[in-house]
Amino acid sequence: MAKDKKPRRPRAETPRGFRDYFGAEVTERAAMLAKITEVYHAHGFDPLESSAVETVEALGKFLPDVDRPNEGVFAWQDEDESWLALRYDLTAPLARVYAQHRNDLPNPYRRYAVGPVWRNEKPGPGRFRQFYQCDADTVGSASPAADAEICGMLAAALENAGIAPGDYLIRLNNRKVLNGVMEAAGVLDPADPEAHAAARGIVLRAIDKLDRLGEAGVRALLGEGRKDDSGDYTKGAGLGADQAEIVMGFVAARRDTGAETCARLRELVGASVQGAEGVSELEQIAELLDRQGLGPDRIVIDPSVVRGLGYYTGAVYEAELTFEILDEKGRPRQFGSVAGGGRYDGLVKRFTGQAVPATGVSIGVDRLLAALRAKGRMSAEAAGPVVVTAMDRDRLGDYQAMAAELRAAGIRAEVFLGGGNMGKQLKYADKRAAPVAVIEGGDEKDRGVVQIKDLALGARLAADIETNEDWKAQPAQMEIPRAELVAQVRAMLARAAGPAEG
Amino acid sequence: MAKDKKPRRPRAETPRGFRDYFGAEVTERAAMLAKITEVYHAHGFDPLESSAVETVEALGKFLPDVDRPNEGVFAWQDEDESWLALRYDLTAPLARVYAQHRNDLPNPYRRYAVGPVWRNEKPGPGRFRQFYQCDADTVGSASPAADAEICGMLAAALENAGIAPGDYLIRLNNRKVLNGVMEAAGVLDPADPEAHAAARGIVLRAIDKLDRLGEAGVRALLGEGRKDDSGDYTKGAGLGADQAEIVMGFVAARRDTGAETCARLRELVGASVQGAEGVSELEQIAELLDRQGLGPDRIVIDPSVVRGLGYYTGAVYEAELTFEILDEKGRPRQFGSVAGGGRYDGLVKRFTGQAVPATGVSIGVDRLLAALRAKGRMSAEAAGPVVVTAMDRDRLGDYQAMAAELRAAGIRAEVFLGGGNMGKQLKYADKRAAPVAVIEGGDEKDRGVVQIKDLALGARLAADIETNEDWKAQPAQMEIPRAELVAQVRAMLARAAGPAEG
Repeated sequence: MAKDKKPRRPRAETPRGFRDYFGAEVTERAAMLAKITEVYHAHGFDPLESSAVETVEALGKFLPDVDRPNEGVFAWQDEDESWLALRYDLTAPLARVYAQHRNDLPNPYRRYAVGPVWRNEKPGPGRFRQFYQCDADTVGSASPAADAEICGMLAAALENAGIAPGDYLIRLNNRKVLNGVMEAAGVLDPADPEAHAAARGIVLRAIDKLDRLGEAGVRALLGEGRKDDSGDYTKGAGLGADQAEIVMGFVAARRDTGAETCARLRELVGASVQGAEGVSELEQIAELLDRQGLGPDRIVIDPSVVRGLGYYTGAVYEAELTFEILDEKGRPRQFGSVAGGGRYDGLVKRFTGQAVPATGVSIGVDRLLAALRAKGRMSAEAAGPVVVTAMDRDRLGDYQAMAAELRAAGIRAEVFLGGGNMGKQLKYADKRAAPVAVIEGGDEKDRGVVQIKDLALGARLAADIETNEDWKAQPAQMEIPRAELVAQVRAMLARAAGPAEG
Repeated sequence: MAKDKKPRRPRAETPRGFRDYFGAEVTERAAMLAKITEVYHAHGFDPLESSAVETVEALGKFLPDVDRPNEGVFAWQDEDESWLALRYDLTAPLARVYAQHRNDLPNPYRRYAVGPVWRNEKPGPGRFRQFYQCDADTVGSASPAADAEICGMLAAALENAGIAPGDYLIRLNNRKVLNGVMEAAGVLDPADPEAHAAARGIVLRAIDKLDRLGEAGVRALLGEGRKDDSGDYTKGAGLGADQAEIVMGFVAARRDTGAETCARLRELVGASVQGAEGVSELEQIAELLDRQGLGPDRIVIDPSVVRGLGYYTGAVYEAELTFEILDEKGRPRQFGSVAGGGRYDGLVKRFTGQAVPATGVSIGVDRLLAALRAKGRMSAEAAGPVVVTAMDRDRLGDYQAMAAELRAAGIRAEVFLGGGNMGKQLKYADKRAAPVAVIEGGDEKDRGVVQIKDLALGARLAADIETNEDWKAQPAQMEIPRAELVAQVRAMLARAAGPAEG
């Protein structure tokens, strides 16, 4: 058989914008998500794992970042000609799942979901095309109590994950109040709700940028428009000075207490029926949260929170971390938002024609994990296994027996299965972050002993060691009876975990 | 603004061959995988979560099911013209990850991985285009001890997940032995290893079908070929009767003990160097497993196991469950294979040009989960939450406080947030599989009491109840002081969980 011409080797690379997660990156994320979903589960929320692949028509055009260019999904055509795509969030699939299975689901349906989502966007530093989301939503309840429940549950989840009270703040607002303000400002007419839609979209996104642009920047966007530092011009909403004043009054309506804020909002929405409804909902939510002991030190009414997403129809909420971290250049900065959500009543209607009230929150998994690491709430280095070295290649059975004994005692352990001398084996153990190495050469075997070594102490020297004899000369190494292996390794691990070296 | 013509509503459907997983389907799978990965982790294996999307060139053409038509991946072209695809298994990504990160990884690299994979195949009953795999592999060790470790770890993982000793059997073989037999049968020439490759492929797949086709069917495929029941003709390997006899002797070489089986295999491979090496590896693996107390009641050398996958180069192993279950038509049948794997030395070489020895196992997650459910090893119905009914819409705060008290005591609890009378609320609780419902109307509130109801007892009647008065008349309902809510609900849950009704 003639040999084919040898093809060039494939490149061993993740695709652009994708990455792999190793060891503690996987287990720490899993531990954090377990803490969060434990709270969701305790609140009666059920897990849902929808398929990663959806039809393009089911996903619809609800991508959350309306400002971002090249927004999109990874899509392809199936063999039956239909277009399929990877989900870009966990909310659009929930709407599809609820519409598909609504006769079998409890009503209201509370569910949580955890999993990767995919965005066909230009990757950037720290921005990947696959990332995790963790959502909780209640579908089928229009009650402000459902919004209050989500806000309270979010606070409990953040605290259960390791964010201390005082280190986070959930800010709460209501789109109906904003709509009331739009009415008062003359850019929303209840008799013709489609009119001025474009201007309202600009107002919404302008307010959402308050943190970044400041008051003057927002005012410019409410009026004629704004040229940014790069020279790019963003068209404004075209509001007059009086109109803009009403909107800016809304943004600055936060007062010392929720009651005062609500009173101020009632003034601002004037005669708007929808606006009054929104204020009333905020009052109900605040009262329910107060009853749970979740006061303004944890959850506060803040009209400057609007969230840019077009589909929200009522309450909106956002959790930010209030402590500072150092950025990559060592400058302190506020950590910022780690979760957000709100009420949306239109997503299921797309499928069924019937409005189904829904409210829910999404946690930015990677951001929260980074925050917990920054606060030292994650065990910095996950414990590697005890490494049983393989001095004598013919006695692997003996070494496996030692590892099995350690495991039976609940101690993570493995036998070195590669090639190389003791120095190489200890370098391996070092790379594994092994706390302890076990060694049993022929001499030790004959005398019924083994050597155990505290690698946390000895790792720095390991690179220079080539023979068993050198190795024995190091500190933090003990010769112990073989029969005491488990007890002595356990004691050494306890010393290593203690505050001082034993 | 003119309104667009209304588009037709999107269909609320998962794509063909995909499905969603609800509630206990998610938590039971997670619980099983936690039991399995606990064992892997204890053995020093580290988690790896590679990206779901790979370049098509990195994935290569290693799809496991060589016989299946329309085998394939879900692929699409990225904006930079490169082709991307969803991973079809966890082994091909491991090879890519190892080649990409080998300088940063320990050597050997032991890793486990859990996650969905995607196959662009024709879906069928119980066969989906997205499903879970759970793999453990050791990359960088050529030692038979690495194969023995995986086999022993697989046994420990199955037992930790709930499969009792005696309910499973891991069968072990070695491709080098098969190659030795091929040499003896004249279809493999060490001096020209490419010759007869097609015939060997047919022999491999024929042996792999022994369970299904029986000895006569395999013999036909070794010779001229075979017409199946549907009339389809499968071309044979073209072996003569003497050659086929050698192969069939190999397939039937299993003896009462591993030593006897190995002795028989030594006869069969004759002068083949590779064959003798394979037998020697089997002996080493069996000895190491014996040392761990994993005898032929758990792991047995069985030459009829070859595994159809082309890329295996040494040890191959397969775990089957030995108990019978009833199929969908009520007929008993053997449960069959739930895991398989082996040694493959060529996957990393594709990228680097250097052969890297590797061995690993993949567990069929859905099949093992089905087996555990069939054996009653999964809590059949996960406990729903305690449902606090909402008799009085204006006192949601009181109800939320009750739910919060229950949760603080570790009891899953929620408040009904939908609309409807008590009958509707109890139907909801029933759908939630709620063990207990709590009720507090105005009358109870005034008297400082609440009603608690054991729904496991009362669920059958619930559908007929429309009023609070009817509901109180039922058995299994108690009036208790409000202050005793947590203690009394806990006691009712304990009675419900007990062997007899309390």
